[in-house]
Amino acid sequence: MIIMKAEATEEEIANVVKDVERYGLKADVSKGEYRTVIGLVGDERKISFSHFAVLPGVKEAMMVETPYKLISKEYGKLFDEESGYRVIKVGNISIGGDEPVFIAGPCAVESKQQMFKITEGIKKAGAHILRGGIFKPRSSVHSFQGLGANGQEGAEEALSWLREAGDKFEMPVVTEVRGETHVDLVAEYVDIVQIGARNMYDQDLLTKVARKNKPILLKRHFGAGIEEFLSFAEYVAAEGNKNIILCERGIIPVGKGKNYTRYTFDLAAIPAIQKETYLPVFGDPSHATGRRDLIFNMSCAAIAAGASGLMIETHYNPAEALVDGQQMITPDELKDVIDACQKISRLVAAKNRKT
Amino acid sequence: MIIMKAEATEEEIANVVKDVERYGLKADVSKGEYRTVIGLVGDERKISFSHFAVLPGVKEAMMVETPYKLISKEYGKLFDEESGYRVIKVGNISIGGDEPVFIAGPCAVESKQQMFKITEGIKKAGAHILRGGIFKPRSSVHSFQGLGANGQEGAEEALSWLREAGDKFEMPVVTEVRGETHVDLVAEYVDIVQIGARNMYDQDLLTKVARKNKPILLKRHFGAGIEEFLSFAEYVAAEGNKNIILCERGIIPVGKGKNYTRYTFDLAAIPAIQKETYLPVFGDPSHATGRRDLIFNMSCAAIAAGASGLMIETHYNPAEALVDGQQMITPDELKDVIDACQKISRLVAAKNRKT
Amino acid sequence: MIIMKAEATEEEIANVVKDVERYGLKADVSKGEYRTVIGLVGDERKISFSHFAVLPGVKEAMMVETPYKLISKEYGKLFDEESGYRVIKVGNISIGGDEPVFIAGPCAVESKQQMFKITEGIKKAGAHILRGGIFKPRSSVHSFQGLGANGQEGAEEALSWLREAGDKFEMPVVTEVRGETHVDLVAEYVDIVQIGARNMYDQDLLTKVARKNKPILLKRHFGAGIEEFLSFAEYVAAEGNKNIILCERGIIPVGKGKNYTRYTFDLAAIPAIQKETYLPVFGDPSHATGRRDLIFNMSCAAIAAGASGLMIETHYNPAEALVDGQQMITPDELKDVIDACQKISRLVAAKNRKT
Amino acid sequence: MIIMKAEATEEEIANVVKDVERYGLKADVSKGEYRTVIGLVGDERKISFSHFAVLPGVKEAMMVETPYKLISKEYGKLFDEESGYRVIKVGNISIGGDEPVFIAGPCAVESKQQMFKITEGIKKAGAHILRGGIFKPRSSVHSFQGLGANGQEGAEEALSWLREAGDKFEMPVVTEVRGETHVDLVAEYVDIVQIGARNMYDQDLLTKVARKNKPILLKRHFGAGIEEFLSFAEYVAAEGNKNIILCERGIIPVGKGKNYTRYTFDLAAIPAIQKETYLPVFGDPSHATGRRDLIFNMSCAAIAAGASGLMIETHYNPAEALVDGQQMITPDELKDVIDACQKISRLVAAKNRKT
Repeated sequence: MIIMKAEATEEEIANVVKDVERYGLKADVSKGEYRTVIGLVGDERKISFSHFAVLPGVKEAMMVETPYKLISKEYGKLFDEESGYRVIKVGNISIGGDEPVFIAGPCAVESKQQMFKITEGIKKAGAHILRGGIFKPRSSVHSFQGLGANGQEGAEEALSWLREAGDKFEMPVVTEVRGETHVDLVAEYVDIVQIGARNMYDQDLLTKVARKNKPILLKRHFGAGIEEFLSFAEYVAAEGNKNIILCERGIIPVGKGKNYTRYTFDLAAIPAIQKETYLPVFGDPSHATGRRDLIFNMSCAAIAAGASGLMIETHYNPAEALVDGQQMITPDELKDVIDACQKISRLVAAKNRKT
Repeated sequence: MIIMKAEATEEEIANVVKDVERYGLKADVSKGEYRTVIGLVGDERKISFSHFAVLPGVKEAMMVETPYKLISKEYGKLFDEESGYRVIKVGNISIGGDEPVFIAGPCAVESKQQMFKITEGIKKAGAHILRGGIFKPRSSVHSFQGLGANGQEGAEEALSWLREAGDKFEMPVVTEVRGETHVDLVAEYVDIVQIGARNMYDQDLLTKVARKNKPILLKRHFGAGIEEFLSFAEYVAAEGNKNIILCERGIIPVGKGKNYTRYTFDLAAIPAIQKETYLPVFGDPSHATGRRDLIFNMSCAAIAAGASGLMIETHYNPAEALVDGQQMITPDELKDVIDACQKISRLVAAKNRKT
Repeated sequence: MIIMKAEATEEEIANVVKDVERYGLKADVSKGEYRTVIGLVGDERKISFSHFAVLPGVKEAMMVETPYKLISKEYGKLFDEESGYRVIKVGNISIGGDEPVFIAGPCAVESKQQMFKITEGIKKAGAHILRGGIFKPRSSVHSFQGLGANGQEGAEEALSWLREAGDKFEMPVVTEVRGETHVDLVAEYVDIVQIGARNMYDQDLLTKVARKNKPILLKRHFGAGIEEFLSFAEYVAAEGNKNIILCERGIIPVGKGKNYTRYTFDLAAIPAIQKETYLPVFGDPSHATGRRDLIFNMSCAAIAAGASGLMIETHYNPAEALVDGQQMITPDELKDVIDACQKISRLVAAKNRKT
Repeated sequence: MIIMKAEATEEEIANVVKDVERYGLKADVSKGEYRTVIGLVGDERKISFSHFAVLPGVKEAMMVETPYKLISKEYGKLFDEESGYRVIKVGNISIGGDEPVFIAGPCAVESKQQMFKITEGIKKAGAHILRGGIFKPRSSVHSFQGLGANGQEGAEEALSWLREAGDKFEMPVVTEVRGETHVDLVAEYVDIVQIGARNMYDQDLLTKVARKNKPILLKRHFGAGIEEFLSFAEYVAAEGNKNIILCERGIIPVGKGKNYTRYTFDLAAIPAIQKETYLPVFGDPSHATGRRDLIFNMSCAAIAAGASGLMIETHYNPAEALVDGQQMITPDELKDVIDACQKISRLVAAKNRKT
């Protein structure tokens, strides 16, 4: 990591970047209010830091050997002394700001009418961002894979329904890309690109999505420790894209016998991650628990734990959904959740990500 | 399970009990407002239910093959139709009632002066029950094992400090028994007997403590699934003691790399357990996270998840504690926690254990 | 699943397939020695089995609701009554036959000279198939990503070294594809395409590789239960490619404190999987343990557990390897492993996959 | 840890011990062939090592800050340079010697006739030590708890059957103590006292059993990491009893969906533990897998992994057993297991615990 002097010129910065690249690494240039910091992408052991320390305009040059440095709180503070955390703007919505943000919508996009009806409901309930799955990751090849499975045309049609519903009710939209071939198409239609838990380790997909320069919602794999999760978020940041929303969605259950929840909702990971990075952290109680009857309590708990927002699967009639009906709630129930969460958010605000 | 008619006589009930015992099982007689229910302890397959169905005073006789039936919500509702949940009274404190209950105090009892100073602090902060460890379960034989390790005399002295501190500040007290030989002594001094996570599977200890007829705080083992946890609570209920406070305190972490929290705080277990049993469920953010800086958020989260109370390790100067300093908070910090939790409790009350 | 009569004609079979497709499902036609079986890919609940049961040539039509049916032992037995297991031929090598098969080579391809030197060593040691990583999945963006990271040219050069080394020493070769964009290129050069643990859930990658009609080495994700592992193998089979080698390579460790092995080598999964499917199962002690000093014992253990072969990372000088030096053994050590394993294989043969 | 000079006198040793105790620690005196080593039990930070270093007869005094030092390989080598591992003699049987040792018998002692019939069978099959459960740890209070549940008399009767069967067929016997109140009684009857997985964390039970000065079979808790397992074995060693047989019996399963094995048999823990300690390590495939059809392969695998012996549940008619029938094998099947294991043991001997 190379910290430039406050008075360093553009030329001096460009000079350092060129030198970094000569060593075979990439330079991540972050210009903050107070100074410019140059993060190194690649193996820092190849670099002679004493060489950089004496270049014109350089204040300090030092090795940082953690697998996530570009997204670390320390790095963020270097170029943004006041906050040390990042607010991501999507349309009128501020993600990671003072108010919690709610992403809602059905597990899977099924029809235009379904999307419009649900979007109307969740808008009224107070949700901010619309979700809807088109490329569904599924454990069984024999189950419904989402409308994205119907070829280019089917996928585009479903994407357009999502987009139109979002536009009509003035909500930004998000959907998941499951493979590299979906990225170009999806990025054309959505405001935020989601990378699902099962793809968290897919560094090629992460890199490809990062280059679209759209905000990314990155879910934690259910087998990933926190360090791994942040290390893979670093793949996105290494492409210069730091608009990353991290999302805890449950880790694999431990212990014998039947599971009472689908996964273990690792809520303490939310404040623990928040101490490490300036990125906002969300929670997904729907996938974590897999149980409608736990969504209210676990949504409140996630916000109390310090989440900057939630993703909650919603459907006007969960029983008729093609996928995951048992974990979706109705727009009316969503309203109760959002109301309670907003109040709780204020109660815990003093201990949240800014501190 | 045998449900008696509303008008069944004492004699008819006694008759059924005698018959149950003839089959080699024990009878758990629960007299509710509306009717009497007789739970069977032991292998129900040995019983002829058709025989019982026609005994005088019997309304219904049926096999229930879950490993926890005496503590199940269904069983509770049979004899207590209105609530379906149990409130445990300890002195003036109602555990499982409308207000959350806070148990606080140091990890280990160290001196009389320490106990009085801490108790004064937590009382002012709003805590209800005083804790302090005397028989400490420790992973290393080479580390401090609590004053209980100093023989009968040392243990009694420490117990008396705990008792006196509780009496002076009008707080019921709780401490852990680590082995069967501690039970008689501890039960003399405390209001609630704690069985720690590492002893959850110790059916002999559970049985011995149950017979003391004092309320029991039973912690979930970090390797136990919910079904196992409830099955071992059933060992206590099988002795006729249903004043059991269940406590989630973190399960073993999953995944490679360093742990950011000591255990995984399985908060969704709290409402999930609450759907199964009429017993109150607590959370212990101190042991679950092992991090002072996460206690505020994770306490609020546990209450939001529906916990009926919390156990929080507290010390006026965590840095000088002999054990677990890194996870204890100060009485001032405790006050903030309790204040926030009480407000959150009201916000989620409508979705709590009564529902 | 539709079982055709022994005397069913080609026309009758084609007729059934056409009908299946009319229902929106795909048909997997397996012609065995004794009869033809038509597996259904997709949601079988859409099908009217009574309709199929009476079609000309059909013996039986029934719903099978497991997420892995095309690779199940039952299905295999239907068309191959004698064995109930599959032997995959690659060049002269029989995978899943009477002798265990050893895949060896370095973690990463580094140079032509390195590949030739290692291949010579492992050939002499008795290995059958050559491996070498070119597209490396890595947790940190700041570490060496394999020569595949050097663009098309770098990747092709590395692939050609692997191929040439294999050709010179008469060994089939295998390497991993990490993303969809690697598939076409890799399939040109190798005999077996590996899908790594981190990509096990990537159904798009699985489908794309399956269509290359080359044998596939599919590793179990470290967070996947056995049912999930087999369900994703089914994605490959659903494309008509049943030359799948399953590989257990360690699951995520459980418990507090430092890890003595990198993952938990789930050896009982090997015979447990073997009871479910006709596909051969391998073990990978290198990634599972991450420790050179455990490779000998854990290789022997995997073969004793019933593995049809092993993948073992080998390097003439592990200390100088760019990746994973601490888990690679030398060709001389490999020879000891292979010798012991071959003897153990004969001792346990009677209880292996054929039984 | 204090290493005495080869020529140190008894008086000098006694002097050091006295000094250690003055500091409030206990001294573990190990007299080896070459020198005497004094291990310290308790918090070594209380000790002034420079004081001890200059006492008469002392060669070296140094702090060792691992939670298991008295059972560590390094400690063992200090007083026993040649082997660095311990062989435990029980009757004619050498545990941890050149040949693997097989403990067999039913899950639960049910009758005298059952015990004699099974013992005869396993003796013929080649087993060395007889097991039989009397105090059964059970998840459900409603299931059979072993004959130990029938009071003092029932327990003694069952113990006498076990003893008589062992005597008649010249086999040492082992049974489990579940609680502290069982220790005196059990120790009268058996040659080896077992502490089950669920009691591994019970330091009071460990201490009480250790003082009986009989060999102890200590099973790893299913939620315990290796470091924890060894730290609790240290509780036994701290009482001066180092005749400890460690036993891996499966850790809690990870991942969603149904379990194909009851626990995860962590076989790599066997050689990993063997690198840490001079104590012998066993495996228990019966409890680890819970499946009869996997016992042969997983027994062979455990021996191949380097186990010094196995514990295998055996019954002449598993179907009629009161407990765990699905995981027991017959004496005939046991014979096949033992024959194969003995051959495998010789094949891997060169890489076993001595190295």
